[in-house]
Amino acid sequence: MSIKDKITQKGLSFPAAPAKGGIYTSVKKFGGNLYYVSGCGSTIEGSEKKGKLGKDLSLEEGQQAAQRAMLNFLAAAEAHVGSLEQIKSFVKLIVFVASDDDFYQQPQVADGATQLLVDVFGEEIGSPARSAVGVNVLPGNIPVEIEGIIEWEA
Amino acid sequence: MSIKDKITQKGLSFPAAPAKGGIYTSVKKFGGNLYYVSGCGSTIEGSEKKGKLGKDLSLEEGQQAAQRAMLNFLAAAEAHVGSLEQIKSFVKLIVFVASDDDFYQQPQVADGATQLLVDVFGEEIGSPARSAVGVNVLPGNIPVEIEGIIEWEA
Amino acid sequence: MSIKDKITQKGLSFPAAPAKGGIYTSVKKFGGNLYYVSGCGSTIEGSEKKGKLGKDLSLEEGQQAAQRAMLNFLAAAEAHVGSLEQIKSFVKLIVFVASDDDFYQQPQVADGATQLLVDVFGEEIGSPARSAVGVNVLPGNIPVEIEGIIEWEA
Repeated sequence: MSIKDKITQKGLSFPAAPAKGGIYTSVKKFGGNLYYVSGCGSTIEGSEKKGKLGKDLSLEEGQQAAQRAMLNFLAAAEAHVGSLEQIKSFVKLIVFVASDDDFYQQPQVADGATQLLVDVFGEEIGSPARSAVGVNVLPGNIPVEIEGIIEWEA
Repeated sequence: MSIKDKITQKGLSFPAAPAKGGIYTSVKKFGGNLYYVSGCGSTIEGSEKKGKLGKDLSLEEGQQAAQRAMLNFLAAAEAHVGSLEQIKSFVKLIVFVASDDDFYQQPQVADGATQLLVDVFGEEIGSPARSAVGVNVLPGNIPVEIEGIIEWEA
Repeated sequence: MSIKDKITQKGLSFPAAPAKGGIYTSVKKFGGNLYYVSGCGSTIEGSEKKGKLGKDLSLEEGQQAAQRAMLNFLAAAEAHVGSLEQIKSFVKLIVFVASDDDFYQQPQVADGATQLLVDVFGEEIGSPARSAVGVNVLPGNIPVEIEGIIEWEA
């Protein structure tokens, strides 16, 4: 089964590649077969709840936002590199979580993203090094932004 | 025309390499011809406005701060690696923007940095992968800090 | 003298590798001999002071927290890669410092981590590129989180 079929089977739609929000490159190749994916936000439809964890979104809503940011990340990778079947490794992610000052569950929010990767790519390819950190605010008041490095097959 | 001439022609001064603010290396080589550039602040003269976007600085002032941080980044790269003409690619940047809790235009601030890169290096070399995120505070109360990876010619 | 002996000689205990706090890989290899180390918190015993710099912790307590996060980082690296004697370079770190809105000494806090590296690995190997940034909150209300890249000997 293809990666995209696995995503669909989970009841998720694979989105169009997110539009760039400024002067940069969505995915940039470096060091051989490595690709840096620019920070992807959690907006797909545009109707999603904005704001901060601990104030405007529940933990579950934050996890869904992290999952959407991950889907946008995958859509950017596919559009700018190629078939997701050729991904050798998700190397690392930083998951930025817009957080109220006393919200402490950033890792649980980030699990919404990495659970998806492990489910569809398996543990060895799909489980990256990861940092989950709180920030007071993200672009456009989105709750989650994810950036990272992918290694592609040579 | 040299990179530095292009910068000068835009009415900008190319600064001296920024002093280190602690125990670290300004630019560190890794993985062949890749270089990690430490977080560069937006202070050049020392008289620039400090504080946060959405509170102490206008969007335009923030963009100018991002441009200054990018100039410091370039000055560090030149001082610790070599001629800017030999840069093969700006791989990625994280642009940290000190932001009031309801300031949402971090990407527009970051464009102040990447517009400079694209103007003087061209789109292919100069346009990096990028993340722009808000943070509540940066060292010395500066408004912008930029870190990133450069690929140099072998 | 071994790296661990040098750490012990400074009066510090080398901790067990930190438990993972979610769905990710503690240390992931990429691009040859590079390793991405996931964000490591500053908790070792569990009894350490939580909270933010500028509010709950003094600068010195923050530096000790950064040192603990660095020890956790080294413990993760050893457990998941191998002998610390084989480290060729600490390439880069991001030191996230949970900060009150008017705390500006993130680099001084981060020095608690990089001073340890330079002391036990020497300047050339141990001094990484580094970014030190403030954030309003970190997972579990810890004061410091550190992520980074290590280059190992081939």
